[in-house]
Amino acid sequence: MEKIDGPAFFIGKEKGLIPFGAGQPDLLPPKEIYKNLSSLDNYRYEEIQGSQELRQAIAKKYPQSNKDNFIITNGTSEALYMALRVLYKHKAKVLIMKPYYYSYPFYAKYAGMDIKYCNLKDGKIDINIFKKSIKGCRAVIINSPGNPTGRIQSSEVLIKIKEIAEKEDVYIIFDEVYKDIIYINIDYDKLYRHLSSEKIIFVNSFSKTYSMCGYRVGYAYSQNQALINKILQMKTHISMNTNTLAQKMALEAIKTPKSYINKKIEIWRKRKSLIYGGLKNMGLDLWEPEGAFYVFPKVKNPKKMVYDLYYKYKISVFDGAWFGDPRRIRLSFALDDDKIKEGLERIEKYLKIEA
Amino acid sequence: MEKIDGPAFFIGKEKGLIPFGAGQPDLLPPKEIYKNLSSLDNYRYEEIQGSQELRQAIAKKYPQSNKDNFIITNGTSEALYMALRVLYKHKAKVLIMKPYYYSYPFYAKYAGMDIKYCNLKDGKIDINIFKKSIKGCRAVIINSPGNPTGRIQSSEVLIKIKEIAEKEDVYIIFDEVYKDIIYINIDYDKLYRHLSSEKIIFVNSFSKTYSMCGYRVGYAYSQNQALINKILQMKTHISMNTNTLAQKMALEAIKTPKSYINKKIEIWRKRKSLIYGGLKNMGLDLWEPEGAFYVFPKVKNPKKMVYDLYYKYKISVFDGAWFGDPRRIRLSFALDDDKIKEGLERIEKYLKIEA
Repeated sequence: MEKIDGPAFFIGKEKGLIPFGAGQPDLLPPKEIYKNLSSLDNYRYEEIQGSQELRQAIAKKYPQSNKDNFIITNGTSEALYMALRVLYKHKAKVLIMKPYYYSYPFYAKYAGMDIKYCNLKDGKIDINIFKKSIKGCRAVIINSPGNPTGRIQSSEVLIKIKEIAEKEDVYIIFDEVYKDIIYINIDYDKLYRHLSSEKIIFVNSFSKTYSMCGYRVGYAYSQNQALINKILQMKTHISMNTNTLAQKMALEAIKTPKSYINKKIEIWRKRKSLIYGGLKNMGLDLWEPEGAFYVFPKVKNPKKMVYDLYYKYKISVFDGAWFGDPRRIRLSFALDDDKIKEGLERIEKYLKIEA
Repeated sequence: MEKIDGPAFFIGKEKGLIPFGAGQPDLLPPKEIYKNLSSLDNYRYEEIQGSQELRQAIAKKYPQSNKDNFIITNGTSEALYMALRVLYKHKAKVLIMKPYYYSYPFYAKYAGMDIKYCNLKDGKIDINIFKKSIKGCRAVIINSPGNPTGRIQSSEVLIKIKEIAEKEDVYIIFDEVYKDIIYINIDYDKLYRHLSSEKIIFVNSFSKTYSMCGYRVGYAYSQNQALINKILQMKTHISMNTNTLAQKMALEAIKTPKSYINKKIEIWRKRKSLIYGGLKNMGLDLWEPEGAFYVFPKVKNPKKMVYDLYYKYKISVFDGAWFGDPRRIRLSFALDDDKIKEGLERIEKYLKIEA
């Protein structure tokens, strides 16, 4: 029996497989990003902080920011890793909330930091738990909308967290890669005004919003200029500028009209209803996603289910244990309605026969 | 008086400036790399180790290798950093030979390692110094052809180094980014056969050979599969796949006929003679480059010369101190003959008036 020991196990391209595994949009990127790619004006090294035009365009999305507050990175992955690496101190601890995005503990490990875990309550931050857990930490990672939970932390909670972090002298890394895929209303402009702080680093990318995962463009943003400069110093040696073509593509992406994103959200919303409703009807216990494209139901024996679904029912799903919750499995709904329906039928069959 | 405190100070785009600073080819990349960039087949995450096709094509250049021995990275920078990071042990030391490539000490620092320095003799490795210095180290970085020295270590020396490293249980990181820009004969095929070792990691890139600096494609290669797997594990979290378009471009580049590289070498060789001869005629003490595109003359008061050349003579050159040799300055000859000639005239004027 082959061991399924993490997301990397699944290639997701097997014929007939329903891939509820991979966390990447199947929808196409805006076609504008492929304009003028052969113009020969960017084969040289460029500014390591990222193209001025691109940083300027991103800065427009964050009130009280300017282009110097940003650094363009190889996806959010690099932004998050480097943010932790420059925050490194001997014996420093990073607070990670369970369930968490698969890679968080690894970022901390490679940055040389220790990890402290605390629990979310039904995917939401409990301020009392947070207050106690944050003491003595160097940094905390907040992911909203959350992967794998699909939950969004309210603006009130985020503002409280900022106040606590400032009081306790802890840095907050806000991972917002799903902020453009949400099913509830959030006034980000207002929220960001309240989150103005030297203690906060936002990380985000073009991967989910614009379906550009493979092109690896992300960024870190902070009003703490010294911190951005430290990340820049690190990137100067460790990877230099982010691919110049990819930055050009990101600039085209960010210029596409808001309708591009809105149209996609309607597709995501339909899929969400389909999979959430379907699993709910099978009697599973799960949260209705408020953002992102994951459902995270409780199931009996998740490890066995992941294995059986893959080998007997040709469905890939992810084990909740990989995200810090061994009672659940994660399903991505980044696939078309017909495949979602087919997948739901197979899961229903599995539950009837095997569970 | 503004402080010139490192390569990043020089933008190199000022009007009328002769840029002997930046270490990147001015010659164009092969036009084939821009074929079919808009084909929409690579917007998703791809294999983090790098495209199979590209690894296969690179593997053909190294006898006794196969595609699994390679990982594609964001330039050699990332390959070198990750190699050191996965070799990290508490209090582990990296041996760096002076003069060194500017970023080496930073890689070691960010990887959490200590640094031990030893000296090259006229840019060449002295086996006795090496033997003594290597003791107790975890790894050593060897750069041949060397930046900033332009010197190449002989095959005999490299083979001896391999034997010593194996005996002393030390890893060798061979930085070979200039291996396709050489002015002497080396039988790499034969050399590589002698360098077959579990203790060696080669790092290289498409930046210098194919003028693709801005696109950031490099790789690490080792016959030590466990080591490559550890780098892969790290990259899985820290930056994921290298930009998919850039990998496609690299594949096209590696397919271009050898004549593309040969034609370029003739250009480099002409420039080398021009600048080496010119500086020699001014009475400067410097080595004739055996590879790469740098000369590294001894000068009186390098710090003042870097400053004066920039502000009074509109020439950028790099201070040897940044490379671990404060008696010298580095000049890149990655610019056309007319500019090299104009630059040489200005330097001659400087030497007559100011030195």
